[in-house]
Amino acid sequence: MNDRLNLAALPEVRLRPLPPEALAALQQRFGAQCSAAAAVREQHGRDESAYTHIPPPQAVVFAESTADVVDALRIAAQWRVPVIPFGVGSSLEGQLLAVHGGISLDVSRMNQIVAVHPEDMTATVQPGVTRLQLNEAVRHMGLFFPIDPGANATLGGMASTRASGTNAVRYGTMRENVLALQVVTASGAVMRTGTRAKKSSAGYDLTRLFVGSEGTLGVMTEITVRLVPLPEAVSAAVCSFSSVEAAVRTTIAIIQMGIPIARCELLDEHTVCAVNAHSKLSLPEAPMLLMEFHGSPTAVREQAEAVQAIANEHGGHAFEWATSPEERTRLWTARHHAYFAGVQSRPGCRAITTDACVPISRLADNILAAVADAEAAGLPYFMVGHVGDGNFHMGYLIDPDDAAERERAERLNRALVERALASGGTCTGEHGIGLHKRDFLRAELGDEAIACMRAIKAALDPHNILNPGKIFS
Amino acid sequence: MNDRLNLAALPEVRLRPLPPEALAALQQRFGAQCSAAAAVREQHGRDESAYTHIPPPQAVVFAESTADVVDALRIAAQWRVPVIPFGVGSSLEGQLLAVHGGISLDVSRMNQIVAVHPEDMTATVQPGVTRLQLNEAVRHMGLFFPIDPGANATLGGMASTRASGTNAVRYGTMRENVLALQVVTASGAVMRTGTRAKKSSAGYDLTRLFVGSEGTLGVMTEITVRLVPLPEAVSAAVCSFSSVEAAVRTTIAIIQMGIPIARCELLDEHTVCAVNAHSKLSLPEAPMLLMEFHGSPTAVREQAEAVQAIANEHGGHAFEWATSPEERTRLWTARHHAYFAGVQSRPGCRAITTDACVPISRLADNILAAVADAEAAGLPYFMVGHVGDGNFHMGYLIDPDDAAERERAERLNRALVERALASGGTCTGEHGIGLHKRDFLRAELGDEAIACMRAIKAALDPHNILNPGKIFS
Repeated sequence: MNDRLNLAALPEVRLRPLPPEALAALQQRFGAQCSAAAAVREQHGRDESAYTHIPPPQAVVFAESTADVVDALRIAAQWRVPVIPFGVGSSLEGQLLAVHGGISLDVSRMNQIVAVHPEDMTATVQPGVTRLQLNEAVRHMGLFFPIDPGANATLGGMASTRASGTNAVRYGTMRENVLALQVVTASGAVMRTGTRAKKSSAGYDLTRLFVGSEGTLGVMTEITVRLVPLPEAVSAAVCSFSSVEAAVRTTIAIIQMGIPIARCELLDEHTVCAVNAHSKLSLPEAPMLLMEFHGSPTAVREQAEAVQAIANEHGGHAFEWATSPEERTRLWTARHHAYFAGVQSRPGCRAITTDACVPISRLADNILAAVADAEAAGLPYFMVGHVGDGNFHMGYLIDPDDAAERERAERLNRALVERALASGGTCTGEHGIGLHKRDFLRAELGDEAIACMRAIKAALDPHNILNPGKIFS
Repeated sequence: MNDRLNLAALPEVRLRPLPPEALAALQQRFGAQCSAAAAVREQHGRDESAYTHIPPPQAVVFAESTADVVDALRIAAQWRVPVIPFGVGSSLEGQLLAVHGGISLDVSRMNQIVAVHPEDMTATVQPGVTRLQLNEAVRHMGLFFPIDPGANATLGGMASTRASGTNAVRYGTMRENVLALQVVTASGAVMRTGTRAKKSSAGYDLTRLFVGSEGTLGVMTEITVRLVPLPEAVSAAVCSFSSVEAAVRTTIAIIQMGIPIARCELLDEHTVCAVNAHSKLSLPEAPMLLMEFHGSPTAVREQAEAVQAIANEHGGHAFEWATSPEERTRLWTARHHAYFAGVQSRPGCRAITTDACVPISRLADNILAAVADAEAAGLPYFMVGHVGDGNFHMGYLIDPDDAAERERAERLNRALVERALASGGTCTGEHGIGLHKRDFLRAELGDEAIACMRAIKAALDPHNILNPGKIFS
């Protein structure tokens, strides 16, 4: 990577002026569904990234149908106005920030579940449907949607960042679980990318090209996903360790033995403390694995016994079981609040969050080096990890107005990414590139891959109106 | 679909002349690695499709390294010569036929296993490595590569058609199991598309864009795949049924119950007869499910008992178990020879093979209608299916020189595809589009998706030298 990078440099803002004719056309077409009110714009100009300097979008359009998305894009194309799709605003890397101005296209009102085919275990939803909403709708059919990034994100947002989360170690990510999309293109055409078939060799895999494209290639208006049967038996357990290393080595052994664990989450001591304070729990304040097992009662017992034996070998304390649904929910809710608990542990701070994912054999050295660096830097931090996948997050808690703190955090982030790339890993397991990781993407895949992505972007969005400035600058 | 289609029309051949300077440049660079001998060209101009009218490529280059591929593509780009990557020639839809002339780029000598990381369960191979070769190399590490299309195809060919096969119901397809590629672009640049991390949100999913692109976007020179642990216990069973319908309904129930069956293959009576003759077996000549269970001994027993109960409910005869590795190998080898056994059952014929894949709830009606149509048409056929995935193949056995037979088979194929599309399925589960299914692709995804694919193709291969004429005409 380039050593001359100014690590604390904030993403450049280059606003394109919003032509008054464009705003007039949007207002005429959308009436009360279009707002230029400051409060509405502000609400659509903030995400969970550490960037606070970027002006909000110039207007917000609330789409209620595919036809609305088509018309918004046609007007935007006519006047070359940037369009930034918006779900609930839970992205972490600046994906929804209006660095080139333009409109926020809020799809949260497109929250209909279009169809569920329980006999095929598929659902088709509008992009504003959230994961909890979908799960609520299919639970009585004995099914669930396995992708769980923690936040109650929209399916549109999750598809756009190729999200994953706690269940991915067993069930895969949005990459594996999106079967097909309906997408509106930059010119306002409506396109289908696939079918409900479980597999297909029908031409270029447009579904997976759009999944993870962060709104830069089109706007998703329908998402068809796989559902999975609710497991016959579920049990969750927590196990504390005397060191992060022991917890990570336990994880590595579980994965290398091929145990089909459903969730395997690491929380460091800082995170456990923050979670205890935030969620009024009394978990032992030590590095902890939070695990879940799915299957038949026999299979769950077998898996749990095998994991317990591995944990014992690494000095893990006795498992504490959470077998009732209420106890499990309490634990997983606490885990899902870990990010906010961490951020709240330093009032007024923002988190600069890392997202490296490495081959499992390199997980221990990558995590241990990241922890050692963070300790040496003296910056408050917390660490959580979807460690079964080799994915972990450091949250460096900075004062967003303190350039020196930002610089220290970005230096830590950069060292962490460099180690991950040297280990055969990626700079982002699940959060995406957004504004924050554009340089890392180049370091990871090289100039040729960036050129290829740019060529695709130029072919599908020749006027660069779809979320410009994201993924590459 | 367009009713005016001439179903027996053969793909148009529009040869671009090979410029003598291009051949001279190839010969100078490649010496004995370049051949224009008729026998060599013929061998690279035949696949397993039913097309026999297309002239062979004008020359063959045997690449032995990424540098060879780069130079071949640079010369081809300079003279606008079509380049068709070639592995073992087992594609079924005309993927390797030189409808626009040009050179066959044979990568079968690029058969090195570049790296295996057993602790991460990944392998990186050159494109000419075959699946049996890879499995041979990793078995002693307790690992295997789960994608099994039957033929001993190359990994390059399998990645290019997004292949799957018998294990996909449990382990996914090439879509899920390729982690990263090294690709040489149309201009001769070398590009990486990913890392060895299990998951990633790093920009556009170039890996999955190239997987299944049938050599039209670049030439793969390294393929990084996931391996999986050899199961602790394996058992295989055959179960005969009085009707295809009973076998299919058994399959649907297995899948809907979420039983993690590792293989679930249907053979109709014709196929069982052909297989018995070809492989000297004495399987009961009735519709049959051929199944395999993987897991711990307990898990395998649980799965097998559950499946046996379901089969009984549908009138399945007693399971016959193949528990020894030798017996299992004999059974699966017979299954893998089913295609050739079927073709050999009518001397001199070629098979027109269908490849529809439908949501599991629609499998019975799709298969039964296909069988009824085939019976009514009076054309010899066989049927096999990766039914656990909703994917099945009719093989219509035609005299390739008999236009009327071809027309009848194509009419059956078309009706079958129309039903699959109306059921929310795809025209191709695993064989790809090639020349044969180009019209079906448009019917399946619509004009906008084709336009999007064409735009990507034009952006990445502006002179249309990479396997031109395939996927879209």
